[in-house]
Amino acid sequence: MDKAEYPVGRFPIVKTWPVVDGGKFPVKAFEGEVIDFGATAFREGHDKLAVELVLTSPSGKTTRHPMLPGQPGLDQWVTRLQLTEVGSYSYQVSAWDDEYGSWVHATSVKLAAQVDQELMILEGKKLLERMSSGKAKTIAAKFEASLKILDDKKLSPTEKFEKVIASGVSELAAKHPLRERETLSEAVSINCERKLAGSGSWYEFFPRSEGAKQNRDGSWVSGTFKSATKSLQRVSDMGFDVLYLPPIHPIGTSHRKGKNNTLVAEKGDPGSPWAIGGKEGGHDAIHPDLGTEKDFAAFVKAANKLGIEIAMDLALQASPNHPWVKSNPQWFTTRADGTIAYAENPPKKYQDIYPINFDNDPVGIHAEVLRVLEKWISLGVKIFRVDNPHTKTVEFWQQLIAEVNQKHPEVIFLAEAFTRPAMMHTLGKIGFQQSYCYFAWRNTKAELASYLNELAQESADFFRPSFWVNTPDILTEYLQFGGRPAFKIRATIAATAGPSWGMYAGFELYEAVARAGSEENIDNEKYEYKARDFVGSEDRGVSLAPRIRLLNKLRRENPALGQLRNITNHYSDDEQILVYAKRLAPEFNGGKDNTVIVVVNTDPHSVRETMVHPDMQALELPHSFEVEDLITGKKFTWGEHNFVRLDAFSEPAHILRVIR
Amino acid sequence: MDKAEYPVGRFPIVKTWPVVDGGKFPVKAFEGEVIDFGATAFREGHDKLAVELVLTSPSGKTTRHPMLPGQPGLDQWVTRLQLTEVGSYSYQVSAWDDEYGSWVHATSVKLAAQVDQELMILEGKKLLERMSSGKAKTIAAKFEASLKILDDKKLSPTEKFEKVIASGVSELAAKHPLRERETLSEAVSINCERKLAGSGSWYEFFPRSEGAKQNRDGSWVSGTFKSATKSLQRVSDMGFDVLYLPPIHPIGTSHRKGKNNTLVAEKGDPGSPWAIGGKEGGHDAIHPDLGTEKDFAAFVKAANKLGIEIAMDLALQASPNHPWVKSNPQWFTTRADGTIAYAENPPKKYQDIYPINFDNDPVGIHAEVLRVLEKWISLGVKIFRVDNPHTKTVEFWQQLIAEVNQKHPEVIFLAEAFTRPAMMHTLGKIGFQQSYCYFAWRNTKAELASYLNELAQESADFFRPSFWVNTPDILTEYLQFGGRPAFKIRATIAATAGPSWGMYAGFELYEAVARAGSEENIDNEKYEYKARDFVGSEDRGVSLAPRIRLLNKLRRENPALGQLRNITNHYSDDEQILVYAKRLAPEFNGGKDNTVIVVVNTDPHSVRETMVHPDMQALELPHSFEVEDLITGKKFTWGEHNFVRLDAFSEPAHILRVIR
Repeated sequence: MDKAEYPVGRFPIVKTWPVVDGGKFPVKAFEGEVIDFGATAFREGHDKLAVELVLTSPSGKTTRHPMLPGQPGLDQWVTRLQLTEVGSYSYQVSAWDDEYGSWVHATSVKLAAQVDQELMILEGKKLLERMSSGKAKTIAAKFEASLKILDDKKLSPTEKFEKVIASGVSELAAKHPLRERETLSEAVSINCERKLAGSGSWYEFFPRSEGAKQNRDGSWVSGTFKSATKSLQRVSDMGFDVLYLPPIHPIGTSHRKGKNNTLVAEKGDPGSPWAIGGKEGGHDAIHPDLGTEKDFAAFVKAANKLGIEIAMDLALQASPNHPWVKSNPQWFTTRADGTIAYAENPPKKYQDIYPINFDNDPVGIHAEVLRVLEKWISLGVKIFRVDNPHTKTVEFWQQLIAEVNQKHPEVIFLAEAFTRPAMMHTLGKIGFQQSYCYFAWRNTKAELASYLNELAQESADFFRPSFWVNTPDILTEYLQFGGRPAFKIRATIAATAGPSWGMYAGFELYEAVARAGSEENIDNEKYEYKARDFVGSEDRGVSLAPRIRLLNKLRRENPALGQLRNITNHYSDDEQILVYAKRLAPEFNGGKDNTVIVVVNTDPHSVRETMVHPDMQALELPHSFEVEDLITGKKFTWGEHNFVRLDAFSEPAHILRVIR
Repeated sequence: MDKAEYPVGRFPIVKTWPVVDGGKFPVKAFEGEVIDFGATAFREGHDKLAVELVLTSPSGKTTRHPMLPGQPGLDQWVTRLQLTEVGSYSYQVSAWDDEYGSWVHATSVKLAAQVDQELMILEGKKLLERMSSGKAKTIAAKFEASLKILDDKKLSPTEKFEKVIASGVSELAAKHPLRERETLSEAVSINCERKLAGSGSWYEFFPRSEGAKQNRDGSWVSGTFKSATKSLQRVSDMGFDVLYLPPIHPIGTSHRKGKNNTLVAEKGDPGSPWAIGGKEGGHDAIHPDLGTEKDFAAFVKAANKLGIEIAMDLALQASPNHPWVKSNPQWFTTRADGTIAYAENPPKKYQDIYPINFDNDPVGIHAEVLRVLEKWISLGVKIFRVDNPHTKTVEFWQQLIAEVNQKHPEVIFLAEAFTRPAMMHTLGKIGFQQSYCYFAWRNTKAELASYLNELAQESADFFRPSFWVNTPDILTEYLQFGGRPAFKIRATIAATAGPSWGMYAGFELYEAVARAGSEENIDNEKYEYKARDFVGSEDRGVSLAPRIRLLNKLRRENPALGQLRNITNHYSDDEQILVYAKRLAPEFNGGKDNTVIVVVNTDPHSVRETMVHPDMQALELPHSFEVEDLITGKKFTWGEHNFVRLDAFSEPAHILRVIR
């Protein structure tokens, strides 16, 4: 066997992290993200090993970062770095024989024991000579100075050693190491994407509802991109970065769903935007009620001007009236009787939807979807929220996202796959920048603490969660039955724990009534227009908008909240008072520490008092410190054990910034 | 990007097991070992997926084994197989579109709901026609028969479906599946070694002590291979498979250690066998006191005749008198003053030992060690116990073991590396067939339960532990202070929990006195001769030999005890009563179930009563069952909750065989 065929090198480096499936997929990161790098590396015998992280940035700059021992006994080496460039990073771990370190250790022990004293000084001289050899004059001169000390006949061996160490030879050696017998681990790629891929606040509205008006006869005039443009200021005022629109394409008429998901639509029912395609066109067309392509482009521009990006829906399915049904019937499944298969979950039928068959003509459907995406990208869209990606082949997404991102690395795909972990995680691995997650159904302290830990510690390398408090499909029991405190609690947790969080219009109005037997709003906007009185509600004090504004403001002012991997759980004695913290150390935040501790009463029906015990070591907190509650502005002196009282009916949370 | 470059295939298979470091190292197995295979595989949408294990044996035979769903919600697929051929296996997981399964499911649901009844029969016909197409006449005829049922105009759709299912079409389809859109995982190698690599009982003695005699003047006559041959019957009677000998080479005289590890040897002190090399030769020579090469070969043959293999020590270090010091000084480290570096752990010096430097001449030292091994292999040695492999480079062992095993696949290397897990595990991964482990220091119920679980569930793919109750270097506090019950308890656990276990001579005589301040026997055999009265002690009832004989007999009669991966922990209400079980299901044991439940009082100073609650599901136990205690021969009726009383002073354990 050739030496190169053996898996282990001179110094075993048996594990490095972050890594996804042994390097099969690149690690996910986003601009400004702080990442813990580590390796399990060791050597035979008792001599010293040096371990470094060798990082190559997208622009090709390679830097070396010393790694320090981690958990004792586990041969782990760690360092923490912030990625600041968008593009493909790669890293390797380098391990080499730390001859200088071994010499310093052995010499100090032997001098103390009065063993081999002259010999150790002689060994040191030979080592420094080797380190100096071939170096530039200025550096060689510094080594020369050290050698002179070791040669000084007036000094005893111990004096020589103490003097040469005091002269800074260790720092010199660290700067110019020998790196003998260097072993490098396999390179691992990190895909560092733009900030919104990992961090941002999202709002969802149906443009047809924004400015929609009901006539006296009960019929409706649809909102348009023009009327919806007026709503952008409201979204911007609340501090959102992204506005996500449900599908804006023509809607099918065959088997159109009526109000409250009834099987037969009445006259004037607009239909579900997800029943895509009609005589006016398919996925590349705009619903005529909403306006023209020009109107859409203007809407996108107006949003961008307010600092808002538009996210479009990509729902790969067709109504029976979609142009594809005639032009490309091979993109659907034809049944034995010659009809096209509609969606079904036997015995349930969804006759308004034809699912796409990705096996019949994978090349054709891929090309068509690419064409559609290119069109919307050309109109200013850089974010796509993908409807039910788990009902399409993973292979399809893998190729599509890779091709789109190759040409448009700024494009972000958000996966709406509420399914089992294997599929959800794999969609993240193969390219989805972000994913809806189970946050909506994690409501108790225990559930949330465990889920936050999973998301931050276990899956952050490949799965970036988006914390949605509600959607047109999701109105959880917690919100249905928790009253207004529930809405406040959920928004507070989503906005502070989730680097990405989202909210669907109506949440701020505490819309809490579900259609019987379902987990979604009654009179659901999916099947009808909704004209909401946002301004009036706020005037009457029946709106969460002020809190939303505050939360998004705090997110902007506290960059620690924009990170995922930095979540740490902390203790409280109460079974429903959740405590977590996020920190950006000064070196990752322009020299300013940013530590935020969030304490929330997760029981919306109670007033609770308890003691909170922060993990002082994890947050590098002093014995006593000041915190400022960013909700009330009040300051407290905190330490290892702190009393809190949280009244869900008035204020269920503290958002505490540590003043250092 | 080329399609082949994408990591995920048509059906994602994101994980398969067993696997070691993503396939970097082959999985370890041994002849007869039963292994759990698994995969995480899933598909989009709601249709059915079929998953199979495709196993290729060393002789090139490929077999397919259906995998069944594992833990719900995790998309896991599992099967359990026994490897019976020595050599390199490889496996892949195959996932394909289970069109037949999807049709059966949809049809049964739709017929019940009276939806698409005729259509589903039509779909079934088309599917069966495709499955039949191109098949051999006899098989096609069977499909024909099914199709006829579906064509029978006298039957309703439901009758057709029920009749065709009753006709055995599902079994036919399972035998002749379409396997459309088959996706294969990457191949993983399994190195299946001979049984002793994973399972066996070991005994250690110093040949120079076996038959050694003390003269009246206090001087000794060394035992020889000839005199030690007489001891083989004793070892064989106790039922051991392997006899391990400490180094048998000439011993250095410079700085030779005296009795009890003193720095100066007295006249007649034989020295430590690990200080290898003298004027009579080095690692390729035999200590003249022991005899000649011929004597050694005869000794090996005599052992083999009794069913015992000889394991030799491989201690890669030299005394200052080793021939290598003159012939190849580059294999050692020369210090700045020109002297050769002896072993040290500053300020401690081990001047009787020169460690080898593997960096100066890796090719030369490799060739020399290979030559030495080949010599011993030619004399009948097939097992090497490697002394302190963790103080040599991993690279060296990796290459050496690969080369030796390529030529001599039967050769087994046992690593004696008591160090941190990264090194211990890596030595297993790179080739060591077996490893000393931390069993000796796991004494309480909690420690043992956790360690057994780790060894059987977490590291079994790459680390095969050997459970030694003692060694010349290890006399644990538990044995020093636990009295005779401690010896009985430890032997019982080692022999029943460990598929490989070992014992160093003297254990059966309850030798429990340590040298002060050390964790090894006083008057240690490493530095002097030991003439033990095995027969007399047994006659006086002061010997554990009868128990050892019983334990090794039970091991032969209960093949479940020879497996590692089958250990399961079970509950008892007492904090020191340990309960574990091992099972071989009938299909892996010639049609006969073998289930052994071991209940041990791990506290050697107590009599304890408690309830034992076996995990009925894990062992597939009926509500009530008979067990036979293999120590006493008594039978009990057991169920979910069972009373036990274990008196450490008389009998601290039950070894219960389940009678099915």
